[in-house]
Amino acid sequence: MLSNLSVNLEQNSYQIAIAPNVLSEIGNYLKSLNVGNKILVVSNAMIFDEYGETLINAIQAANFSVSHHILPAGERHKTLLSIQKLYDQALENHLERSSTFIALGGGVIGDMTGFAAATWLRGVNVIQIPTSLLAMVDASIGGKTGVNHPQGKNLIGAFHQPKLVLIDPQVLKTLPHREFRAGMAEVIKYGVIWDADLFQQLEAAERLDELEYLSVELLQNILTHSCQAKADVVSKDEKEGGLRAILNYGHTVGHAIESLTGYSLVNHGEAVAIGMSVAGKIAVKMGYWSEVESQRQDQLIIKTGLPTTVPPMLEIDDILETLKSDKKVKAGKVRFVLPQQIGSATVTDQVTPDIISAVIKTCQEKS
Amino acid sequence: MLSNLSVNLEQNSYQIAIAPNVLSEIGNYLKSLNVGNKILVVSNAMIFDEYGETLINAIQAANFSVSHHILPAGERHKTLLSIQKLYDQALENHLERSSTFIALGGGVIGDMTGFAAATWLRGVNVIQIPTSLLAMVDASIGGKTGVNHPQGKNLIGAFHQPKLVLIDPQVLKTLPHREFRAGMAEVIKYGVIWDADLFQQLEAAERLDELEYLSVELLQNILTHSCQAKADVVSKDEKEGGLRAILNYGHTVGHAIESLTGYSLVNHGEAVAIGMSVAGKIAVKMGYWSEVESQRQDQLIIKTGLPTTVPPMLEIDDILETLKSDKKVKAGKVRFVLPQQIGSATVTDQVTPDIISAVIKTCQEKS
Repeated sequence: MLSNLSVNLEQNSYQIAIAPNVLSEIGNYLKSLNVGNKILVVSNAMIFDEYGETLINAIQAANFSVSHHILPAGERHKTLLSIQKLYDQALENHLERSSTFIALGGGVIGDMTGFAAATWLRGVNVIQIPTSLLAMVDASIGGKTGVNHPQGKNLIGAFHQPKLVLIDPQVLKTLPHREFRAGMAEVIKYGVIWDADLFQQLEAAERLDELEYLSVELLQNILTHSCQAKADVVSKDEKEGGLRAILNYGHTVGHAIESLTGYSLVNHGEAVAIGMSVAGKIAVKMGYWSEVESQRQDQLIIKTGLPTTVPPMLEIDDILETLKSDKKVKAGKVRFVLPQQIGSATVTDQVTPDIISAVIKTCQEKS
Repeated sequence: MLSNLSVNLEQNSYQIAIAPNVLSEIGNYLKSLNVGNKILVVSNAMIFDEYGETLINAIQAANFSVSHHILPAGERHKTLLSIQKLYDQALENHLERSSTFIALGGGVIGDMTGFAAATWLRGVNVIQIPTSLLAMVDASIGGKTGVNHPQGKNLIGAFHQPKLVLIDPQVLKTLPHREFRAGMAEVIKYGVIWDADLFQQLEAAERLDELEYLSVELLQNILTHSCQAKADVVSKDEKEGGLRAILNYGHTVGHAIESLTGYSLVNHGEAVAIGMSVAGKIAVKMGYWSEVESQRQDQLIIKTGLPTTVPPMLEIDDILETLKSDKKVKAGKVRFVLPQQIGSATVTDQVTPDIISAVIKTCQEKS
């Protein structure tokens, strides 16, 4: 089973290949890319232990010169300091402008490797091999790269499109259940804002809360539809001028919840799930969306084992204050993505603090 | 006297305006650019003392909100650490994606401000207001940004085109003579590789070694022709895929000399002047260029008060070794830009170490 998608951009179009064991096929892909001989694989220790050997062997078998660099795992290491160590490694291995970084890992590895590739010698090639569901359906596609500033996530970064994205569904077997569900939040998002067919496939599944309940076909469909949705949107708006903003569905309130819970209690996918539930209810309240579809969304979120309620210890005023410092604020106005029907969404800056506040109250069970 | 040039790119085309007192006209330019209300001016203390007030007043008069950040002067501060302080300032001033950094200064300020703009919130606007001749005719145009790695100049960077370049010839009055001559090396370069008319205008001038000997018209012509040459080349090859490489004329050996003399004894323009003299003689030796034109070039370099000989303390083997680690090395081969006639040059990787070595010997007076 191989799905071949393409992200069509004015410059730098690229391919997304989704197939079991695609890692061991990397030699053929590398040869067709017309990149230089030197490759630097970037990963973390746990993932490299699991898949590093397969990947390195496949690269060497195709006669490329390969080295690797292990970054410490976790969001707190997503800093300029880690990037500086990556630069040192690139220098040590004499990487040239035609050389290629390969990111083997989740979103943190992908973002950091992408940023180092964007800024080393003013830009070298990068190939994304995401190993978490979240990275597969979201971060690995679209060219967003970055690291955190002490005062905010991803404030430092660049747009730098990968040369290739390789996705092997089988690597998800080693992914913790909670991280699988976090990725599913983004999958549900694509269903709501872009792909009604995907939404219905998810509704038709009996259980979605753990990977083992998904058939091989459903998993392949989930990956293919989600990547296609992201590729469609990115192709139409590479640098977030307009349409791409709809990908932030659920992320406005979601980011505030992540930030206010210290990026630990609630993970990204859980925060997005809550954010979608809130945004859905705002859309209903403002007449954009039907109550029925908003409830179908919430049922899907709950079936996936994700939360729909705002943690009780959060104060509404703090959430409103945090929304104002969101990266996507334009001329001081908070922008919300609101669904209009399943498979379609729009962006508005007309959501008032009063509406947000009223909806959050209904989404919060105070302890 | 106003020269209006444009850099035509697939995306992000922009204007270069060259005119006396253009700084005080910035309000009209800002209004036409459709950028957000927030501006951050980046400069160093000496330049900001001289021109900061004029610029800030003009920006405020046009009803933009402006703050400024002073970076320490000098190449040794062109580091990621300085960039981090710029990020902090951007955060403190709540810069948004539609906000604009303005670089007011020489190449170091321009490169750093450009890099910070390229990587803050994945890219905000930047306007270049170069105050050195070198920055006016070279660094401010073309979108190259960067900082130094402890082991090499500009190894960290990104391509990020400015929204606008404003050049006021009058600010050159406060430029030290040696820095003026350094800029003239790049002007001569454009004459040799691209613009025979510019070359002849330079030949026709009686003296070129200090700004005061240039007429207002000649200075305007030098700036206009040089910026046009850079704009032409960049328009045809935004990211250094091919043609743009000719801008490295004189820079291959030049960079090696700069590096081996610790970036202090010989400045960039002087190193480029020596590099052009060496490359010219290589071109003659390999049959690319005529002896007569190579000598005309050297006479122009000498008239400008720039050196043509390799410093006596440098060992040829060290130069050859340094050439191998040049950023533009491709598949291990050193690439040279060689003139074919005044106004035209080509790129080749066929220059052998033996030829380089033989030519450098003739360009070096051993002490």
